[in-house]
Amino acid sequence: MPARVAVNGYGTIGKRVADAVARQPDMTLSGIADVRPNYEIRTARAKGYRIFLSGPGRAEDFRAAGLEVAGRLDDLLRSSDLVVDCAPEGIGRENLKLYDQLGLPAIFQGGEKADIAEVSFSALANFDAARGKNRVRVVSCNTTGLARAVSVLGPAFGVDRWDATLTRRAADPHETGKGPIDGLMPAWKIPSHHGPDVCTVFPNLPITTMALLASTTLMHLHSNHVRLSRPPAAISEVVGRLRASPRFHVFEPWERVNGTPEVMEYGRDRSPGGRPDVMENVLWEGGMHLEGPDLYFFQAIHQESIVVPESIDAARAMLGLAPDGPTSIERTDRALGIPRPGT
Amino acid sequence: MPARVAVNGYGTIGKRVADAVARQPDMTLSGIADVRPNYEIRTARAKGYRIFLSGPGRAEDFRAAGLEVAGRLDDLLRSSDLVVDCAPEGIGRENLKLYDQLGLPAIFQGGEKADIAEVSFSALANFDAARGKNRVRVVSCNTTGLARAVSVLGPAFGVDRWDATLTRRAADPHETGKGPIDGLMPAWKIPSHHGPDVCTVFPNLPITTMALLASTTLMHLHSNHVRLSRPPAAISEVVGRLRASPRFHVFEPWERVNGTPEVMEYGRDRSPGGRPDVMENVLWEGGMHLEGPDLYFFQAIHQESIVVPESIDAARAMLGLAPDGPTSIERTDRALGIPRPGT
Amino acid sequence: MPARVAVNGYGTIGKRVADAVARQPDMTLSGIADVRPNYEIRTARAKGYRIFLSGPGRAEDFRAAGLEVAGRLDDLLRSSDLVVDCAPEGIGRENLKLYDQLGLPAIFQGGEKADIAEVSFSALANFDAARGKNRVRVVSCNTTGLARAVSVLGPAFGVDRWDATLTRRAADPHETGKGPIDGLMPAWKIPSHHGPDVCTVFPNLPITTMALLASTTLMHLHSNHVRLSRPPAAISEVVGRLRASPRFHVFEPWERVNGTPEVMEYGRDRSPGGRPDVMENVLWEGGMHLEGPDLYFFQAIHQESIVVPESIDAARAMLGLAPDGPTSIERTDRALGIPRPGT
Amino acid sequence: MPARVAVNGYGTIGKRVADAVARQPDMTLSGIADVRPNYEIRTARAKGYRIFLSGPGRAEDFRAAGLEVAGRLDDLLRSSDLVVDCAPEGIGRENLKLYDQLGLPAIFQGGEKADIAEVSFSALANFDAARGKNRVRVVSCNTTGLARAVSVLGPAFGVDRWDATLTRRAADPHETGKGPIDGLMPAWKIPSHHGPDVCTVFPNLPITTMALLASTTLMHLHSNHVRLSRPPAAISEVVGRLRASPRFHVFEPWERVNGTPEVMEYGRDRSPGGRPDVMENVLWEGGMHLEGPDLYFFQAIHQESIVVPESIDAARAMLGLAPDGPTSIERTDRALGIPRPGT
Repeated sequence: MPARVAVNGYGTIGKRVADAVARQPDMTLSGIADVRPNYEIRTARAKGYRIFLSGPGRAEDFRAAGLEVAGRLDDLLRSSDLVVDCAPEGIGRENLKLYDQLGLPAIFQGGEKADIAEVSFSALANFDAARGKNRVRVVSCNTTGLARAVSVLGPAFGVDRWDATLTRRAADPHETGKGPIDGLMPAWKIPSHHGPDVCTVFPNLPITTMALLASTTLMHLHSNHVRLSRPPAAISEVVGRLRASPRFHVFEPWERVNGTPEVMEYGRDRSPGGRPDVMENVLWEGGMHLEGPDLYFFQAIHQESIVVPESIDAARAMLGLAPDGPTSIERTDRALGIPRPGT
Repeated sequence: MPARVAVNGYGTIGKRVADAVARQPDMTLSGIADVRPNYEIRTARAKGYRIFLSGPGRAEDFRAAGLEVAGRLDDLLRSSDLVVDCAPEGIGRENLKLYDQLGLPAIFQGGEKADIAEVSFSALANFDAARGKNRVRVVSCNTTGLARAVSVLGPAFGVDRWDATLTRRAADPHETGKGPIDGLMPAWKIPSHHGPDVCTVFPNLPITTMALLASTTLMHLHSNHVRLSRPPAAISEVVGRLRASPRFHVFEPWERVNGTPEVMEYGRDRSPGGRPDVMENVLWEGGMHLEGPDLYFFQAIHQESIVVPESIDAARAMLGLAPDGPTSIERTDRALGIPRPGT
Repeated sequence: MPARVAVNGYGTIGKRVADAVARQPDMTLSGIADVRPNYEIRTARAKGYRIFLSGPGRAEDFRAAGLEVAGRLDDLLRSSDLVVDCAPEGIGRENLKLYDQLGLPAIFQGGEKADIAEVSFSALANFDAARGKNRVRVVSCNTTGLARAVSVLGPAFGVDRWDATLTRRAADPHETGKGPIDGLMPAWKIPSHHGPDVCTVFPNLPITTMALLASTTLMHLHSNHVRLSRPPAAISEVVGRLRASPRFHVFEPWERVNGTPEVMEYGRDRSPGGRPDVMENVLWEGGMHLEGPDLYFFQAIHQESIVVPESIDAARAMLGLAPDGPTSIERTDRALGIPRPGT
Repeated sequence: MPARVAVNGYGTIGKRVADAVARQPDMTLSGIADVRPNYEIRTARAKGYRIFLSGPGRAEDFRAAGLEVAGRLDDLLRSSDLVVDCAPEGIGRENLKLYDQLGLPAIFQGGEKADIAEVSFSALANFDAARGKNRVRVVSCNTTGLARAVSVLGPAFGVDRWDATLTRRAADPHETGKGPIDGLMPAWKIPSHHGPDVCTVFPNLPITTMALLASTTLMHLHSNHVRLSRPPAAISEVVGRLRASPRFHVFEPWERVNGTPEVMEYGRDRSPGGRPDVMENVLWEGGMHLEGPDLYFFQAIHQESIVVPESIDAARAMLGLAPDGPTSIERTDRALGIPRPGT
């Protein structure tokens, strides 16, 4: 019998996790919960998902919108084997009490502090650490992007020092109230929290990060300078390693992908799993350079979707649905239409 | 045997028309032609489309990119029953000579002047006019949006006068070189060409338009003020007419769709036919107002995709594949996943 | 003795009004009041303005920032002949009580409702109506732009009907928290409030407006379609009338000003009165068209500064400092460096 | 007699250099040269600058625009002691021949390659190196920003390693044709040319840079990570050094300047020398951090104006108008209204 997975919070991440769960052969979406009806909930209905009320949500609001509600959040949780908490930042910690009362395994988002969970998770890095755990935190989009890169480059070449500047998108596409429209905004916490957050997955990694916000909605862009312990002879070896790993996409020069707009256009053209998302770390052959032990590279991160396959893998680890990380990743990616390495 | 349809030019419109053709039950995509390889062509290959060289294209460029070429444009055309020309503005007129030499029926884009074709086409307005024609021009995105609205409102309520301001997106999402980043740019042709262009479909319609460019990549937004000859008693009658027509989407207030970013988010959530496009005219109940004979309404137009179903219908009319417009439209929309009216 | 003018609220409008007051030969800036110190207050100090605490403001906050405070708002008001209220929208109505208690003439911004004042004011339209009044409301930036245009075109050619679409900047340049970054947002009130607001100055003017927000910070752009009662023979007559009026700037084609970014660049190059503002209605010869009785034109409105000279004129009318509107306008514009008509 | 300085090219940089020359006590603007009339030239006329024709420019174009032309470029050059070449990138090298023929000292912009000149110049770094030279290149805006920071931090604390990511504005405000509107674009040259370009001023400096383009028109933003040889005990020492140097502006936390939009707003509020520019390196106390020998800091660079005072100093060095750098810098900054350190 497939594992019954609930999604609490049906926003940017929640709706994607719900779609992803629904496509897994070994999982079933027990339902989604949210507070208020809107166009996203309308799509949930069109897809046949069962809708539950969370928090202060009122059934009459949904009914007025012509939407049937199947019950309240605790009804949903009682008929589920695991919940993926996709509530807004900070609300996860409130929800935690309820999950604990019910003894329900729960996955939290990276917006929550690390101590909310027993382990901070990134599938390529520490799948086994989440095995059988009750509370797992999937690290945030930027941290996931960095952790994946460390997962490949670390074992292969060693990392003596990792410096990154994260130029972050200031808002998601639908966050119409957020700016700036024209400007750049430094993140005042220096080094930014991303470096320490990567260390929740890779303790003691010598990484420091700075971050700023830019007037864009599409993707984050990381500028990385890594001093390698065991540098390869040529950049092509680095490219080869990344291409051989799941969840990396390296554009070739002839594809003429000049920046994040074309990356997302590629995502739309491809639309794996029915969603125009780019769940891989995105790199460019022309955006990588090796100079002795110094590796420089850009990578773009689709903030809305990169953590989605990670959440699926976390669920598998917690529920014991896969023997190991590579097996889970392969299953997840096939179901979501993420290309396998080398294809 | 399904009609063999070729697509010449595999850019923003061409790739969408190709996908749309491939999904029709009574058509088959004979191939696509383009000049240079890039990430879009890579997706064409992944989808199994046959790729041909057009214009000055060189097979070695494609081969260097690992892409197999099936021949040149005239090879493609000789094995096709119709071609949809999706070349950049102005190139269609050059291509016309080749199509004529081969006696091949051809559909042109609205960027070409009206005299390139025997008829300027919009499916809700004049499907029958394209029947059996050799050269048909599908009007441009903004003109299609206006023509559809006229098609519904004209017969129902009569149009005494139509004033519209078209706030146009300054660039498509992937046109990374185009601005402005922060600004508004009036279109110096006043009235703008859109009004007269609607009149290629509805001769003598009393419409005048002004246009400007805004710093956005997502959608055009039309502000319409229409004086009706036979105004209804209430705005709800107007809403009802639009909802009863194919290719209109009217958001309800509870959906909280505040502007074009949420419209496109809805498109991504829905992804009809595997593409995150919004091929309908988009309106809002809260964005319509009736005051005596004066109807005001906003409509948003997805510049990249709205003409795609129109091109399919044009092909059906030209090749005699459907008995009438409504039949063709229903077939097109079902294949593309565009919701039927009232659903 | 020059009239003593206080400015309550030192933000986007307040700091400009303060600078403008300080430049008038017949006025003196008695001081400015605000709640919290920031970079704007720092500039006030550098300019030698006396700073007072308003609302819940605390002297220690200013002192910690090294800023001397001269007293509280009521101290400022007691030593002033008039106050220009530049507080955020809605706060003006609260402040009104204090002004009334002190019997101090007060000017309010257009963000307040019309009934806050005895008259809604636009200098070219109704200078005399504000004469000797105690409470005057300077209409908002968009309304000022429309009212000025009516002031010139109405008497000259008559207005049978006025249709306008206002594409509004979504945020001021410094409002870094406001979006949308990429999108267009209809204003749901239809017709928009701007038409009725123009009628607070020109009762019964047959004007209707629609409005939308665009991803820009620079200027609003109005698309106008006006049916004239007594149309001139040629558009050049319209251009001539506008050029002969104060507070209009009409670009010539050879200047190659393609949109609002170049307009503001022109403002920066010119920097009248030490501020890179454009306080005139901005039009383009190439952005005007006459077709029989139908006049079409674009005008751009600098939301941050257009009401500044209007506030100065309102103060003169209320305090009886000028015999008539034209005299006040000429004095204001000379002091602010706004070019006289025909120069 | 003041030195006669010509400006060839009256665009973004040229018009600012012209204004700056006109304000210097020991220089006079002999004239400006350009190819075509536009709104910028109109302002030149309003300021009383003599206008000359450069390149393929035609007098009749200027006359048709009502602009008097005083002669051709070589007329201007013959009556000048020095020319500042502000022509578009690459054109400087063509102009060089003419300057050489006339034996006229010339200053070039940083867009030209370093070998165009005898020395690459940054006033805080190497004023004396330009003394008596015939051809000097003022390094580009980003390089100037970095070179200034090195000029202060290097002598004080020593630089073991300097890593910077430059998030560049994609277009100047008036470049309405340039994008991207929504996106981030990596610079494919890695490390970027900026590091080596700083080394034209500071040979062998251990600096590496990466660059990307963002959807903004206002300022560049540098993220710097510097390993210091002789780190101070506290970050306050670094702040103190920067505050004590000309051409640095460090915002305090209470000023609540959250990003580049407020920085430029501050520039507009201040408008030193009649232009709303920010010619200093801009830093924030809250945007600096010291961790052992590791110094992290953001700095914002106003691409349109930062090289303007540098060009003035370069002219003084070449023509022997000042005994040393500090004297020249003080004279330049006083004339331009750039605050002196500690004010």
